Amino acid sequence: MLQGGLVYPSGPGCYYYLPPAVRAMEKLVKVVDGEMQAVGGQKLNMPSLSSAELWRASGRWDGMGPELFRLVDRHDKAYCLAPTHEEAVTELVAAQSNLSYKQLPLRLYQVTRKFRDEPKPRFGLLRSREFYMKDMYTFDASEEAARQTYDLVCDAYCSLFDRLGLPFVKVQAATGSIGGTVSHEFQLPADIGEDRLLLCPNGHFAANVEMLNGERTSCPTCGEKLTQSKGIEVGHTFYLGTKYSSISNAVFCSPKNKPQLAEMGCYGLGITRILAASIEVLSTEDSIRWPSLIAPYQLCFIPPKRGSKEEEEGVTLLERVYDDLAEVLPHLAGDSVLDDRTQLTIGKRLKDANKLGYPYVVIAGKRVCEDPPVFEVWNQNAGEVLFLTKEGVIELLSKVQVP
Amino acid sequence: MLQGGLVYPSGPGCYYYLPPAVRAMEKLVKVVDGEMQAVGGQKLNMPSLSSAELWRASGRWDGMGPELFRLVDRHDKAYCLAPTHEEAVTELVAAQSNLSYKQLPLRLYQVTRKFRDEPKPRFGLLRSREFYMKDMYTFDASEEAARQTYDLVCDAYCSLFDRLGLPFVKVQAATGSIGGTVSHEFQLPADIGEDRLLLCPNGHFAANVEMLNGERTSCPTCGEKLTQSKGIEVGHTFYLGTKYSSISNAVFCSPKNKPQLAEMGCYGLGITRILAASIEVLSTEDSIRWPSLIAPYQLCFIPPKRGSKEEEEGVTLLERVYDDLAEVLPHLAGDSVLDDRTQLTIGKRLKDANKLGYPYVVIAGKRVCEDPPVFEVWNQNAGEVLFLTKEGVIELLSKVQVP
Repeated sequence: MLQGGLVYPSGPGCYYYLPPAVRAMEKLVKVVDGEMQAVGGQKLNMPSLSSAELWRASGRWDGMGPELFRLVDRHDKAYCLAPTHEEAVTELVAAQSNLSYKQLPLRLYQVTRKFRDEPKPRFGLLRSREFYMKDMYTFDASEEAARQTYDLVCDAYCSLFDRLGLPFVKVQAATGSIGGTVSHEFQLPADIGEDRLLLCPNGHFAANVEMLNGERTSCPTCGEKLTQSKGIEVGHTFYLGTKYSSISNAVFCSPKNKPQLAEMGCYGLGITRILAASIEVLSTEDSIRWPSLIAPYQLCFIPPKRGSKEEEEGVTLLERVYDDLAEVLPHLAGDSVLDDRTQLTIGKRLKDANKLGYPYVVIAGKRVCEDPPVFEVWNQNAGEVLFLTKEGVIELLSKVQVP
Repeated sequence: MLQGGLVYPSGPGCYYYLPPAVRAMEKLVKVVDGEMQAVGGQKLNMPSLSSAELWRASGRWDGMGPELFRLVDRHDKAYCLAPTHEEAVTELVAAQSNLSYKQLPLRLYQVTRKFRDEPKPRFGLLRSREFYMKDMYTFDASEEAARQTYDLVCDAYCSLFDRLGLPFVKVQAATGSIGGTVSHEFQLPADIGEDRLLLCPNGHFAANVEMLNGERTSCPTCGEKLTQSKGIEVGHTFYLGTKYSSISNAVFCSPKNKPQLAEMGCYGLGITRILAASIEVLSTEDSIRWPSLIAPYQLCFIPPKRGSKEEEEGVTLLERVYDDLAEVLPHLAGDSVLDDRTQLTIGKRLKDANKLGYPYVVIAGKRVCEDPPVFEVWNQNAGEVLFLTKEGVIELLSKVQVP
């Protein structure tokens, strides 16, 4: 087994994602896939190498400045490593011959590695130079339809963060280098956050300070004094209009059989950033906590210490729980880890478990010798310790979801 | 819906993978994950940006020549876009403090996008400049253990190709720029293949012509005349010894508490290449065929043409098959497509279905009006057409696996 840890730095802003982080990421991607497909998303995968011509046409080859990683191939043709794919996806849709209004909306998304030459990579995966992003691009036949799509995808984001149990706010945001006319960010309030937010305590108004022209101290709706908060941006949505479709001539055939520019939106979710940010906002001083749904493993079993008086009985009984669980709740089998380093005390192993962040830790402690045997179960995300019989353990765990 | 097709070129050797290709790739990755985890593989994810220092230390910064994509960051630090990760993974393992022989073997793998500046990208995904590869790197405590690992991973590759139903040969191969002393390739025999193979008809000997010193015309074991074949390389395995561990000083603590260099192996599988190669070797002139297990969708339903005399009954009956199937075989629900473009003839839609490659096409044709109704079922990979009642259709499809 590779030793503990979630990521390991390979250089400034670049990381190895270690096995538990990959597990969490794959679970998160499954949950995101579900939400995207529920709003008609089709998953594709676009190249990382994106030609200079394409980015020159949109004005972003110069506009993005030093944040673009640039390179030339063996024939001296220039490329960037794409940090986002508005140009690329629009070119793909423009290449569809005879796209009809009947085929719209198109809602295309991918989950791929993106690149950005950050001036100061920091906070681990929160601001790295290689990161995973889910980016969706939508194409609609009218502004009205595009705005419906916009609301639909925003709702899917809300649903995602709700399912992850992450406290979030959706705030009005600046459109930055992406462009467009309407934009929102999904922010997790956190002291470490780099964004400054202004929030109406009654929920009427929420904005990133960046996007405000001038100062605002009270809610435009109810007049209440706005509160300040810091936030970590985990999602960003843009209504783009025809900014990109007009450059690539991404048109569809209207009901009157006329070519018409598609109305676009784009929707980003920071996949690796959500992982880092959720640990940041959920963890306590003593233990790492994940959104339960995407924890690398759901369960850790800790048998008694070698040589303790509970050893023999405890090992047997814990194995029985493990076996019964595999039979009754087979979806948890691959999500369970047995920490058989019985040369270590239970306390030491519990500490290690807290470093990885299992939502549930099942311990064969002193009370395993009672009749019936009682197990100590740490329900980490609820912050409680329960003493349960085998049936009680299985009952508790039957509610655990694995994506 | 985005129009048909599996990939679309974005530039020389770079492709958009369209939604059906992404589905097939995700299925293939699941099957590969299963095989790798069955031999103790732990999945991680390494950066694409790999520092020049790292590659200079192994001699491959110069050795790889123009095939490496190279770039500098905003601080003028040089990187390549990794085509393979021997250097990176060895550095990671070298950084494990106090790695004990008890923690070995380590079998680490990833499935990520790789980059290679091919002089002549061609054959679509067979030789592209961005591609997905599964690469495993193993670390053992002795040469003997490393050779056992080598055999184990090779067996997992054989199991994978068997499960995919792909005819393959394992041949002795040259070690090329990766190095090491023992190497095999997994080849799919195909006329379009770029490799030339020499095979003993009795299975005693199989080699890539590249790796032979001088000419060989007969089997070294049985003396039989060797036959020639062309092949597409889809996997490559290397026993590396201490070539990389000695550069990065990747050591473990031996039972005698002495630092000792890990014995390494590396194992590549071309993920996008397997997709392209299997279509190449399985398809017929009229229809694309996938290994059933990883076809983008398993099933296409084709209701009668609008205005035909079977229309009313056929649509109702086919929907009933569809609904019953979703109930009895829920794992197929997401793998079924209903082609409701009933303005088109059945023949035209069947032709389109053949362009995507559904293993099964269920048609409500003329015989749907019989009592009991009979459906026309094309079992594409078996190359047969069956006429079955609803129960017969469900019985047939109950054998279909989805990873």
